[in-house]
Amino acid sequence: MRVTVLGAGYMGSAMAQVAAMRGHDVRLWGTWLDDALVAAVRERREHPRLKMVLDQRVVPFGKDALEGALEGAELVVHGVSSEGAVAVLGKAAPYLPDVPILSVTKGFLPGGDGVMHRIDEAAREAVGRPVRFVHAAGPAKAIEVARRVLTLMFFASADEADARACASAVGGEFLHVTTSADIAGAEICSAMKNAYATGLGIWDGFVGPDCHNARAACFQQAVVEMALLVRVGGGDVATAYAAPGVGDLHVTAAAGRNRAFGEHIGRGTPAKQVASEMAAKNQLTEGYPAIASAWRWAKEHGVSKDDLPLLAVLHEIVWQDVPVAEALGRLRLST
Amino acid sequence: MRVTVLGAGYMGSAMAQVAAMRGHDVRLWGTWLDDALVAAVRERREHPRLKMVLDQRVVPFGKDALEGALEGAELVVHGVSSEGAVAVLGKAAPYLPDVPILSVTKGFLPGGDGVMHRIDEAAREAVGRPVRFVHAAGPAKAIEVARRVLTLMFFASADEADARACASAVGGEFLHVTTSADIAGAEICSAMKNAYATGLGIWDGFVGPDCHNARAACFQQAVVEMALLVRVGGGDVATAYAAPGVGDLHVTAAAGRNRAFGEHIGRGTPAKQVASEMAAKNQLTEGYPAIASAWRWAKEHGVSKDDLPLLAVLHEIVWQDVPVAEALGRLRLST
Repeated sequence: MRVTVLGAGYMGSAMAQVAAMRGHDVRLWGTWLDDALVAAVRERREHPRLKMVLDQRVVPFGKDALEGALEGAELVVHGVSSEGAVAVLGKAAPYLPDVPILSVTKGFLPGGDGVMHRIDEAAREAVGRPVRFVHAAGPAKAIEVARRVLTLMFFASADEADARACASAVGGEFLHVTTSADIAGAEICSAMKNAYATGLGIWDGFVGPDCHNARAACFQQAVVEMALLVRVGGGDVATAYAAPGVGDLHVTAAAGRNRAFGEHIGRGTPAKQVASEMAAKNQLTEGYPAIASAWRWAKEHGVSKDDLPLLAVLHEIVWQDVPVAEALGRLRLST
Repeated sequence: MRVTVLGAGYMGSAMAQVAAMRGHDVRLWGTWLDDALVAAVRERREHPRLKMVLDQRVVPFGKDALEGALEGAELVVHGVSSEGAVAVLGKAAPYLPDVPILSVTKGFLPGGDGVMHRIDEAAREAVGRPVRFVHAAGPAKAIEVARRVLTLMFFASADEADARACASAVGGEFLHVTTSADIAGAEICSAMKNAYATGLGIWDGFVGPDCHNARAACFQQAVVEMALLVRVGGGDVATAYAAPGVGDLHVTAAAGRNRAFGEHIGRGTPAKQVASEMAAKNQLTEGYPAIASAWRWAKEHGVSKDDLPLLAVLHEIVWQDVPVAEALGRLRLST
């Protein structure tokens, strides 16, 4: 099977590696930001993000070779970050075959109508016609996926047959995939979990060690709010209690950059300062913009502050410079 | 308000401390195993388990003063371990007033009919008449409750008014309490979470560090199985996704004796050996018997092994001496 992966960053490259392990003919196309990554793959050096040499079945394609990379693809993996998604999909539109597009991209994007949309909605707008979009959710850190750590993923598409096709292409030994028709719920969970994982980091930094009850209470509150947001967005609340929600929140909150970003804020450093310090070290903090876009999406969907007490205080802390102790001191759990 | 607490161990004493902070007149009765604890409270020394001096409103009562301790009680807190519950409730029966009994005891108990029962069912049998049983669930480590760490609890009773009465007696600042009529779901979650938390410890010990995906996958599987068990036991699955389920599993799996017990097994030491080593250090491992009674309860309720793949392999590892790698290598997630 010919699999074309768009985006040579963490998750795109990890999925390319998995597809190659499954014996597929894999083309990994890098964006204009991925030149160094593509060069490393071409020269069979260690991938600078994944810290491993990719399978030799992965054939790299540079930014100018998009058409060739997509030619004859039977499955497309969309692994571009949410910031680059619209630009890449717009460029790729003329060459995109009518096959499932498995997207690992998480977040919301502002549409032409000025309001926030799910990635599958933004993709349709960017391509200019309906696309067979499959969203890949679940607790899956890219480095671990590439290294064959047992991982649970959740593929969702409006037509579940497309999700099943993707699952049989890449799922199997060590990568367990379940499928669903609830693309709305899965996308909303994936977009919200970075915001909440950052929030759990803030909370844990604030309450300090030996406060397991408080950590669990906040984790529970995050689950309740994610379930509410899924319902408001037309998804199935069961998805919030499954791999895209509880599962992915668990892995994102346990470790990683979003958590670290949050913990520094929780201990009292202003969010702007933490973000610029981490940016200076080339550490991406998706949770920072994720809180803003989650809050904006919730407001656009008419959810009141009282129903989202945790997200509301996170937004105050991170985007309105309200001191952590003041904001969290006001937090009332709605569970 | 006069509050009588039965059992002077971790959780009984923590609830006595909370009731005292709320201004109640508190009587703390110790069982025949609690003499040293009662003596410490009487002499205003540090409580040997909670490592703190209790509020002076807590009046200790020794094992022979059960009748006096219960006289005039407007609320009874049942803080005896599941092993002692039937014996204590049988002794207390003649003196138990017709008031709510808030029970922090977790587990299942074999009844006179030879099958496993929830604690509220066992309590009714032990007392010999209907009791106004309120089950206290949720992520609440006793030491942290006593030290006023923000904690979320979930009180459930067949007549929710009794749960609300308990919530207004002890809930409030730092102890957030929600109430429910789903006593079946809450009790089942509380009984199951020690088994699953031990299982997550085994799993994490087995997969090792830097396997966050695998940890999250197993956490998710535990949530799915707990929801199934709640449904089979006549509870509301929503309870499994709330504080008694997801929340309590989070705190129990994050740290503590059950987790430590599991991790040693996951790294390859046989369960019997870990249990005896921990027993020699006076460390209680509730997860050990919890796996046996959870498995027995599930079988008595006709749940098949295929629907509980995680609990099934945990039972094999801990109670049937199946090597960890062999049992976990066979695990297929049902999520």
